[in-house]
Amino acid sequence: MDQALDFIWRRRSVREFTDAPVTEQQLQSLLEAAMAAPSACCKDPWEFLVLRDRETLKAVSECLPNGHFLAKAPLGIIVCGDIRRAHSESLSYLLQDCAAATENLLLAAPALGLGACWLGIHPREERITALRKLFRIPENIIPFGGIAIGIPAAEPSPRTRFNPAKVHNAPEWAKQE
Amino acid sequence: MDQALDFIWRRRSVREFTDAPVTEQQLQSLLEAAMAAPSACCKDPWEFLVLRDRETLKAVSECLPNGHFLAKAPLGIIVCGDIRRAHSESLSYLLQDCAAATENLLLAAPALGLGACWLGIHPREERITALRKLFRIPENIIPFGGIAIGIPAAEPSPRTRFNPAKVHNAPEWAKQE
Repeated sequence: MDQALDFIWRRRSVREFTDAPVTEQQLQSLLEAAMAAPSACCKDPWEFLVLRDRETLKAVSECLPNGHFLAKAPLGIIVCGDIRRAHSESLSYLLQDCAAATENLLLAAPALGLGACWLGIHPREERITALRKLFRIPENIIPFGGIAIGIPAAEPSPRTRFNPAKVHNAPEWAKQE
Repeated sequence: MDQALDFIWRRRSVREFTDAPVTEQQLQSLLEAAMAAPSACCKDPWEFLVLRDRETLKAVSECLPNGHFLAKAPLGIIVCGDIRRAHSESLSYLLQDCAAATENLLLAAPALGLGACWLGIHPREERITALRKLFRIPENIIPFGGIAIGIPAAEPSPRTRFNPAKVHNAPEWAKQE
């Protein structure tokens, strides 16, 4: 694990936070990082819904079966995608673009002294429907994923899940399969 | 643009490379970075096809309408996803996981002195079909995206495409829409 890539190894799912707030400057940097991600044909179909209010964080956590800890986080973000703005109005590109933006934000968090966790929304219809209702989200805007953010209660250890079985060399691969 | 996030701002699409090779150690680090990405329920449904051979790089570039420069790159990677291994066998999760891994790899490149460019494959059926034929890729393995990698011929300037119009505050958003 090359130390030059420490920013990669340090991204771990953080679900417990201290009571310390996330500053407006940190939030701004997180959003700038998210929007530095590539998107298909630079369509940038993403939209970011910022959750600061305790009641709103609780309401969103109730829409996400594995997201109970969001209720106690100082900051939440719901990443959505606008299907009308996605390249070719393709759901695949929308998902790819929103995932790249989400990953950028998750990697930025530790570099800013923060921790974060990705909360799945798409393709779970019950989660999408609940969030649509809560925020009156129009049909063209697709709730993609949630992110809980705060100061980590504990420092997780850096890691990769590198697995050599998932690496194949061409053209040998074609001959084997 | 916070300097602590320089690793984010430095990721730019690089399509022109010098003749210098990418070392095996750099390739190893790129793959470790990719597999440090989160995946839904840690299913890690990704598979990485490494392209080193000039003829193979050329053959793949001919499958990708905007990927002609891959033919001249010292290294290419095709990221695929195994639908049988994806969480709930869901294409959405497969796309999200492969996009996060791809973004990790793209961010790792500049930190290793490399440059890279994401080449779209999914959901374009003609690209998927051509690659399936070339490498005899089985039905459960879905070609997701390609990456051209090398030593950049020029150093691109850091940037974000931050757009404040894409940031919404809850619960105000619900009242506006």
